[in-house]
Amino acid sequence: MSTSNAVKIYDTTLRDGTQGEGISFSVTDKLLIAERLDQFGVDYIEGGFPGSNPRDITFFQEAKSLKMKHAKLAAFGSTRRAGGKASEDPQLKLLVDSLMPVTTIVGKTSPLHVTEIIRTTLEENLAMIEDSAAYLVAQGREVIHDAEHFFDGYKLNPDYALRTLAAALKGGASNLTLCDTNGGTLVDEFKDIIARVIKEFGADKIGVHCHNDAGLAVALSLAGVGAGASLVQGTMNGYGERTGNADLITIIPSLFLKMGKTAPCSKNLGQLRELSLYFDELANLRPNTKAPYVGLSAFAHKGGLHANAAQKVKSSYEHIDPALVGNRTRVLVSDMAGRSSIAMKAKELGFEIDEKAPAMKGLIDELKDLEFRGYEFEAADASLKLLLAKWTGAKKTFFEVEGYRVIIERKGAELLAEATVKVKVNGQPVHTVAECTGPVGALDKALRLALEPVYPQLKTTVLKDFKVRILDSKAGSNARTRVLIETGDEHALWGTVGVSDNVVDASWEAIRDSVEYKLNQG
Amino acid sequence: MSTSNAVKIYDTTLRDGTQGEGISFSVTDKLLIAERLDQFGVDYIEGGFPGSNPRDITFFQEAKSLKMKHAKLAAFGSTRRAGGKASEDPQLKLLVDSLMPVTTIVGKTSPLHVTEIIRTTLEENLAMIEDSAAYLVAQGREVIHDAEHFFDGYKLNPDYALRTLAAALKGGASNLTLCDTNGGTLVDEFKDIIARVIKEFGADKIGVHCHNDAGLAVALSLAGVGAGASLVQGTMNGYGERTGNADLITIIPSLFLKMGKTAPCSKNLGQLRELSLYFDELANLRPNTKAPYVGLSAFAHKGGLHANAAQKVKSSYEHIDPALVGNRTRVLVSDMAGRSSIAMKAKELGFEIDEKAPAMKGLIDELKDLEFRGYEFEAADASLKLLLAKWTGAKKTFFEVEGYRVIIERKGAELLAEATVKVKVNGQPVHTVAECTGPVGALDKALRLALEPVYPQLKTTVLKDFKVRILDSKAGSNARTRVLIETGDEHALWGTVGVSDNVVDASWEAIRDSVEYKLNQG
Repeated sequence: MSTSNAVKIYDTTLRDGTQGEGISFSVTDKLLIAERLDQFGVDYIEGGFPGSNPRDITFFQEAKSLKMKHAKLAAFGSTRRAGGKASEDPQLKLLVDSLMPVTTIVGKTSPLHVTEIIRTTLEENLAMIEDSAAYLVAQGREVIHDAEHFFDGYKLNPDYALRTLAAALKGGASNLTLCDTNGGTLVDEFKDIIARVIKEFGADKIGVHCHNDAGLAVALSLAGVGAGASLVQGTMNGYGERTGNADLITIIPSLFLKMGKTAPCSKNLGQLRELSLYFDELANLRPNTKAPYVGLSAFAHKGGLHANAAQKVKSSYEHIDPALVGNRTRVLVSDMAGRSSIAMKAKELGFEIDEKAPAMKGLIDELKDLEFRGYEFEAADASLKLLLAKWTGAKKTFFEVEGYRVIIERKGAELLAEATVKVKVNGQPVHTVAECTGPVGALDKALRLALEPVYPQLKTTVLKDFKVRILDSKAGSNARTRVLIETGDEHALWGTVGVSDNVVDASWEAIRDSVEYKLNQG
Repeated sequence: MSTSNAVKIYDTTLRDGTQGEGISFSVTDKLLIAERLDQFGVDYIEGGFPGSNPRDITFFQEAKSLKMKHAKLAAFGSTRRAGGKASEDPQLKLLVDSLMPVTTIVGKTSPLHVTEIIRTTLEENLAMIEDSAAYLVAQGREVIHDAEHFFDGYKLNPDYALRTLAAALKGGASNLTLCDTNGGTLVDEFKDIIARVIKEFGADKIGVHCHNDAGLAVALSLAGVGAGASLVQGTMNGYGERTGNADLITIIPSLFLKMGKTAPCSKNLGQLRELSLYFDELANLRPNTKAPYVGLSAFAHKGGLHANAAQKVKSSYEHIDPALVGNRTRVLVSDMAGRSSIAMKAKELGFEIDEKAPAMKGLIDELKDLEFRGYEFEAADASLKLLLAKWTGAKKTFFEVEGYRVIIERKGAELLAEATVKVKVNGQPVHTVAECTGPVGALDKALRLALEPVYPQLKTTVLKDFKVRILDSKAGSNARTRVLIETGDEHALWGTVGVSDNVVDASWEAIRDSVEYKLNQG
């Protein structure tokens, strides 16, 4: 067992994470990410594989001028070629030229891979591991040895697997990271093997690098630390090839909150949800609402039984205080929820509504009908507030819609969208027209043109985010569509929703709600 | 340890699964699901909570006439009310009236919950557990006891937690399922507690029910079975409240392929991917491409290093043979992939293209440019085939597009979409117009009207699936949009893709590709 509670966090989002399907970062993204990870307090940031592609080469050029507060930047590569000299190996030269303080070298552990993939002898592979480490150490680098396929290799030939680690140590590697490259190892065998390695080499030198192919990457990483490993490799949100790498966003809070471990980033745990969302935004992925600790649903309660119990003993259905990871408890409005849930939600949104008021019945019926038709208010609080305002009599009317028309026209390479909007403002008809790249932008513009002269407060509002979800994609081109819009002004952000068989009309509904909400805010 | 390798699979998708945010099944869906789960071979199907809502009551009425081949249907409820008699308890009566062969009763384990939530004495809670089981057993039911918050309760007061289990056994429960209701337990403590329970009550009576709040639901379930538990509760695709229940789709293959366990459904393991997709379709969720074992990416390889190694030793990067779970190896086209990956992909799609051919450069450049602009061919093989056909000179031209116009008009409650399309077929201009609910349907109709007289083979093609993804939602209403369309005829299904700042134009591109692909197929 490790004598210390300190653990090091090694992030490989920029290298192994970008192997994930659909994950691609520009050089600028990569530089921003390195700074963000340093700010959060991770210990190592693996920036890429200088030998693999022009993007990584450019990244390392630019990275030389990054000012890291705490994190060490690592360049990733593999052991020297069989039969060559480390000092003459072009790929190791690229690693040295990158000028990064850390180099992480992947080496073969499994005899099968030595003979079948790199096609050399078992002894030469050991020499490749030792030479590569020794050469890089002589150049002043800290060397981390990534033992590829360690667990499969160990099962095939434990002695040889341990000899590869010994070779890396002899070459001067400061850390031996055991990689479950295929992600197929079970927790018990993983623990047994780690224990054997720690017995041989000591816990302070051991790291783990896991993949999620059997859904166990987090469990394996924690098992590794539990057995004494002092470094954990993983990626933000578990990005990575196939089913992904071990998700540091899930591992980190368990290490600090449940296992008593410490690391420099533990003081920033409250940024965790924000950090996770930041990465999804850069990776252009829809955040996983079910993500442990940080997901939108991670502390959401629906269903009479639980919502009621959650009110009584909060810890009954929350394994940690959500604020510790920057998350919060949410009450869900759903057709399984009763009056008390809706009253709670209304209160959360600032409405005092009596559970027993007659308007409650109308509100619940309309909510149920809207949810049945595909409306969802979880990301559309502003639309829900308008509904609550309507049933509590607090909603004011600022304009009436008579209709709109959108024309989208393509002639050869030319494409145009034009929208006309007809509304009544203070009883006066207003008719406006606007053009834009697409129909939604054109409608948004035309409606603003109509309303801004009378309501100048709309001038500072901007449509910030636009999301489309097909609700019954199997209905083909007539599929029902839900549009979620986020609008902002200098003070706030608000979400609205529209649903229709017609994607443009669903967008229109969300735009209209967004404007009505702003005007109702006064 | 269990003396047998048999394990029972208990599915609670229809009850605990529907507590998940956004998960809602109609009564018809629930009946279809019960039949599908029975066909797959699960041992228990928990249908719902007859006391909770009209949908579950209707389900149980209809479920009486379901013919199960193997699975036993279970109705879920809680122990009798404090201070009452089991035989007079209205909720237990609903369970009896459901006529299901199994009733699963949730009971309190934690002294805190007994005194704070149900507000009764510790002794009365034991009586409630025993009485409820005894009453249901007397009515001829098999009773499964779900020990709620078992692990938290055990940590608070181990003796009391064990006494609740003893009460259930005394009442006649055939199984004691230990629930990690908050999902916050770590693997090691979970194993220790299970071992203690098994020592007391024997392994053949113990089940586990886990949640994913710390990302460990799968690991905990496997640890439970590893410690000897003989029943595993979970849901399809891990649906469930907060971060979800233990995912049976991930657990099942590890049990059979890695732990040597057996169950009646093991013979149907090859249906696993299909089963997972079936549930996402009914739940109207986008399948998780990274799902262990069954995800689209679970055996996908990109990046020169791995793709190359995967060709050499297939097992190098695949922890199991994907066919065992109905999945397959995929080669990804991406900007990290080189000529050899593209040549492999082309071969997979039936094109012979020489890696060194001059057209290869043009193809790679165009692919890179399209991927940069947001095109994605992973679900759009037909668009990729058109591109390959273009660069190999195999593509034929059947029509030329001059332009189109779409008008979407709302007047009060009236909504209309009209599309006109102008194409040249065999040099002759054709100009058609069609109406539909939305713009995509109208364009699809108008294009068919123009082409079907000359190409009657289009008459049997149907637009099956329509998906929209906003690529840079932060750009607001001008966000770039990717549309994926799936089209089918009597023989095949094919996917096409379109990308534009204008959602209607992106749809048009995908429709046009879909028609061109069909015509090129001859």
